[in-house]
Amino acid sequence: MKKSSAAFTLFFFIFSYTFAQSPEILKIRAFREQNENAIINEFVSLLSIPNIANDSLNIKKNAAFIMDAMNKRGIQNVQLLSPTTLSKPPVVYGEANIPQATHTIIFYAHYDGQPVNSLQWTKPLEPFKPQLLNGSLEKNASVIPFPTSGGYNNEWRIYGRGASDDKAGVMSILNAYDAIIKSGLKLHYNIKFFFEGEEEAGSSHLSEILEKYKSLLQSDVWIICDGPVHQSGKKQIVFGVRGDCHLDLTIYASKRPLHSGHYGNWAPNPAMMLAKLLASMKDEEGKITIKDFYADVIPFTDAEKKALAEVPSVDEQMKKELGIASTEMPGKSLVEAINLPSLNINGMSSGNVGKQASNVIPTTATAVLDLRLVLGNDWRKQQQKIITHIRDQGYYVVDHEPTDEERSAHAKIIKIIADDGGYNAQRTSMELPIAKNIIAAVQKTTGDKIILVPSLGGSLPLFLFEKYLNAKTIIVPIANHDNNQHAENENIRLQNLCNGIETMASIMLMQPE
Amino acid sequence: MKKSSAAFTLFFFIFSYTFAQSPEILKIRAFREQNENAIINEFVSLLSIPNIANDSLNIKKNAAFIMDAMNKRGIQNVQLLSPTTLSKPPVVYGEANIPQATHTIIFYAHYDGQPVNSLQWTKPLEPFKPQLLNGSLEKNASVIPFPTSGGYNNEWRIYGRGASDDKAGVMSILNAYDAIIKSGLKLHYNIKFFFEGEEEAGSSHLSEILEKYKSLLQSDVWIICDGPVHQSGKKQIVFGVRGDCHLDLTIYASKRPLHSGHYGNWAPNPAMMLAKLLASMKDEEGKITIKDFYADVIPFTDAEKKALAEVPSVDEQMKKELGIASTEMPGKSLVEAINLPSLNINGMSSGNVGKQASNVIPTTATAVLDLRLVLGNDWRKQQQKIITHIRDQGYYVVDHEPTDEERSAHAKIIKIIADDGGYNAQRTSMELPIAKNIIAAVQKTTGDKIILVPSLGGSLPLFLFEKYLNAKTIIVPIANHDNNQHAENENIRLQNLCNGIETMASIMLMQPE
Repeated sequence: MKKSSAAFTLFFFIFSYTFAQSPEILKIRAFREQNENAIINEFVSLLSIPNIANDSLNIKKNAAFIMDAMNKRGIQNVQLLSPTTLSKPPVVYGEANIPQATHTIIFYAHYDGQPVNSLQWTKPLEPFKPQLLNGSLEKNASVIPFPTSGGYNNEWRIYGRGASDDKAGVMSILNAYDAIIKSGLKLHYNIKFFFEGEEEAGSSHLSEILEKYKSLLQSDVWIICDGPVHQSGKKQIVFGVRGDCHLDLTIYASKRPLHSGHYGNWAPNPAMMLAKLLASMKDEEGKITIKDFYADVIPFTDAEKKALAEVPSVDEQMKKELGIASTEMPGKSLVEAINLPSLNINGMSSGNVGKQASNVIPTTATAVLDLRLVLGNDWRKQQQKIITHIRDQGYYVVDHEPTDEERSAHAKIIKIIADDGGYNAQRTSMELPIAKNIIAAVQKTTGDKIILVPSLGGSLPLFLFEKYLNAKTIIVPIANHDNNQHAENENIRLQNLCNGIETMASIMLMQPE
Repeated sequence: MKKSSAAFTLFFFIFSYTFAQSPEILKIRAFREQNENAIINEFVSLLSIPNIANDSLNIKKNAAFIMDAMNKRGIQNVQLLSPTTLSKPPVVYGEANIPQATHTIIFYAHYDGQPVNSLQWTKPLEPFKPQLLNGSLEKNASVIPFPTSGGYNNEWRIYGRGASDDKAGVMSILNAYDAIIKSGLKLHYNIKFFFEGEEEAGSSHLSEILEKYKSLLQSDVWIICDGPVHQSGKKQIVFGVRGDCHLDLTIYASKRPLHSGHYGNWAPNPAMMLAKLLASMKDEEGKITIKDFYADVIPFTDAEKKALAEVPSVDEQMKKELGIASTEMPGKSLVEAINLPSLNINGMSSGNVGKQASNVIPTTATAVLDLRLVLGNDWRKQQQKIITHIRDQGYYVVDHEPTDEERSAHAKIIKIIADDGGYNAQRTSMELPIAKNIIAAVQKTTGDKIILVPSLGGSLPLFLFEKYLNAKTIIVPIANHDNNQHAENENIRLQNLCNGIETMASIMLMQPE
C-alpha cells in the first residue's frame, strides 16, 4: 500500500521501527535470517515431490518428508493418521507438550495440491520443479539460480505447485516452532500439528480421521494456515468460509463425431446445447437465475457487518491488476459478491480448438460447475436446485452413459455427476476470548491494522471440526494474494513466507486468556 | 436399404445378376480380386505415412510414395506441382495420353488428412498405424491381422487417418487405371491425375497451382473423388458443394486464473460469457438468429428440386444410427437442412474439465465456428455478419491479445480470427452432356439407381476450378457414410474401396458424348 504523504511515511517508519523492537518477534526473525538457506532448501525439496491427492505413491513421499522434518525439530509423537482406505492420503500429526500447559492449539495446513496441467505452465516453469524468480512472472521477472549462501531478496518468488497452497503453510508452522525452540523462547500452550493430504480433493476422509482420532485431537482452537493475506498486502484473520460443491455436466448428442458439412444444421450440436443451458443460469447482471438460489442465506451479525465495512476496498486495485474493466455483478463490491452463494464455470469443453480443431460436430459437451455456499445454504439442496433447473429446460438427467433406449426416447440428455464431497459454510464468532487473543497475537507482528474477515470467499471443510470435535476454527492465511493458487504458475513471495513464520510463532507464543 | 417384398428382392437379384455380366466391369473386378493383397498392402503403406498438411516432411513422403505408385503403373509425365512456398504441400500430377483421344478427364483426390488427436482414438486404434477390423468398431468389431494371402471379407474395415478421406480416393483412381491397362481395356479419353496435399488445410495454395499450371490442367471435366456415398449405401453423384469458412473466437477475462472462491461472483467468467454469446446465435428451433444470415440464398432450379425430391430419406435411419431422438431444426429433413447456410461449433474450451478440473475462474474461453455456405452466400460477408452480431452484443473486437489499455477500457473483449481460406459454394448443371455421360457410366456399375445430388452438405473449393480454368467439376464419392472422416476412428469399408475402383474405371472407360 502506498502512503500518500511524507509525514505518514515517517510515522509509519517510526511505528514499524518501534514495533520491530518486540523482542520475541525479533528473535524469530533473526533465527529465520540466519537459517535462510536451510529453510528454503528444505521447502524446495518438499515442493519437488508431486502432491496430487490421488497420486498415492508421491503423497506417501510427501508425508514421509514432513514426518522427517518434524522429527528433526524434536516434535513428539510424530505419526500418520490414516483413513481405513490406506491408499488415501494420511494426515501427518505431531505434538509439543509443554509442562504446566493446560490449553492446546492445533495448527492445520495441508500438503496436497490442486491437479496440474503442465502444458499450461509458462515455460520454463513446471509444477514440480520449483524455480526461483527475481519477482513476479506477470511483471516479467526472470528465472535465477537459488543462491548457495543466502542473500535472498524477499520480493523474489518460488514457483511450483503447493508453493503457496499450502506447503508454505506446513513449513511456516514447522519453522515457527523451530525458531521458538532454538531461540530459547517459552511456550504456554501445548501445540499440536495436523497436516492434511487430501484437502484439494475435497477432504473426503477428513471426517473419518477426526472421528477416529477424536481424543488425540482435542484443543481450544484450530489455527487453519491456508489461503492468501488480504489483497492490500495486510495480514488478515478469517473467521469463516464459504461451503463448496460441484456438478459435472455432460450433454450427449450423436454417438459418433459427424462431418459438419454433411450434417451441420441437422444433427444437434452438444456445444451449442451446453452454451444455451449455461446461459440460462445467469442473467446479464451476473445474478443467478436458478429458482430459490439465494433463498436460504443467513445474514451477518452486527459485529460481522462492522468488520466487513472496515475491510479496505481493493476493487479498483484488483480490476487494474487483473486487467478487467468491469465485474460480473456490476454495483456489487468484491466483499459483497463473495458473501453470496455463487455458481462458477471451472471448465468447459467440447470437440477441439486451436490447431486440433476440425470440421466436426462433437459428440459431447462437458462443463464443471463449482458452487460456493454461504451460511444457511445446504450443499445437497444447492446441487438439487441446479438439477431441477436443468430438468426444467427439458433435459432428461442420467448418471451414466445414456443407453440406446434413452437416446431414442429423449431429445436432450445430460449426465450429471453431483460430487459427494461437498460441504457447508462455517463461521466462528470473532467475539470469543480465544479469538480476541489470536487477533492480538497476530497484531503484534505488524504495524498495519489486522483485517478481520467474517468469511472467506474460499472454502475449507471447517464444519467437520465442529461436527466431530466440537472445535473452534480460525483461519490465519499467509500467502500473497497473487499466488495463482489452484492454477498454473502457482508461487509464493518470499516475504510472505517470512511473515508467515513470524505470524505462526506469535500465535504459538500466546498466553492463555 | 432393405427391400420390402420377396418379389422386389427377386427382381433386384435378377437385375443385379444381369448387370454383373457387363464385361468391362467384370474384368476390373477380376483384376481387383486377383490383386487384393497387393492393393491393400500398398494402401496400408500409404496410410502409415502421417498426412497432416502442415507436417511438411511427412507430406513430402506421401507425395513421393504416390509418384512411385504412378510410375509403377506406367503413368506418364509424373511430377510435383509445387506452390511458390516450397514447404507447402505439392500436388502430385500425372497423365495417360491416348492416341486419337481429343477429350480429357482429370481425376482429383487429396492425400492430406484432417488434424488428429491420438488420445481421442479408441485404443488400440491410432491415426497412423492402420489396422484391420472384422467390421465396424461401433458394432464391436475386433482388430484382426491383415491376411497374408487374400481372403478379405468386404465388410471388414481399415481404420486410420485418410482411410476414407481421401487416400481411398487416390488409390481407387490409380488402381482403376491399373486394372484397365492390365486387363487390356481401351481408353477413349485422355486421363490426367491430380492429387492435392492441402485440402484439409483449406486448399490455401490450390489457386496458385491452378493458375501456374493452367495449360497443363485443361480438361472437359474434373472428377472429384472425395466424400461418402449416400447413407442408404447407394452410389451418388454430386454436382455441387457448400462453401466453408471459419471464425476463431477468444473471450478475455482476468489476466491470471483466479481462485473461484476468493473471486467467484465478482470476476467475470469467460466461459459464461462465451456460453451467452454462442447461445445468442441460434434460437430453440436451431434457426440462426444472426441478422440477414439466410438473405442471399439462391434457390434451386426445377431439375435440382426434382433430383432433391428423389433422394431417398435417411433421416430415421440416421437418427437411429447416431443415437439421437431429434434434430437441430425440428421439421427440416437432412436434405433440406444441409442446403441452408449453417453455423456449427467445431470446438469450445475454457479451463479444464474431468480430472484436471480445478476451482478456478479461467482467463479465456475459446470457440471455433464453422460456417457452411450455399449458392448466393459470399464467405467474407457471412463472416462479417457474425462479427457484426458479436459487436451488437457489446463486444470490443480485436485481432490480437488485448493490451492493458484495451482491457481497462472495455468490459467485453473478444479476439476474432476470421480465416483467410474460406470459399463459396459451387454447382455444376446436371443437364450438361458430359454430366449425363458420367451419370450413365456410374449407373453401369450398379443395379441400384444412382442418386443425383445437386449439392453436398460438405465443402470443397470447387469454385477455384471455374475461376482459374473455367472448368466443370462433378463429385463422385466412394467412401462409406459412417467413415468418421474428420474425426477419430476414421475408416473405410473394403466393399467401398472395391466399388470405388469399379466406379472410377467405368468413368475412365467412357466414350466422349
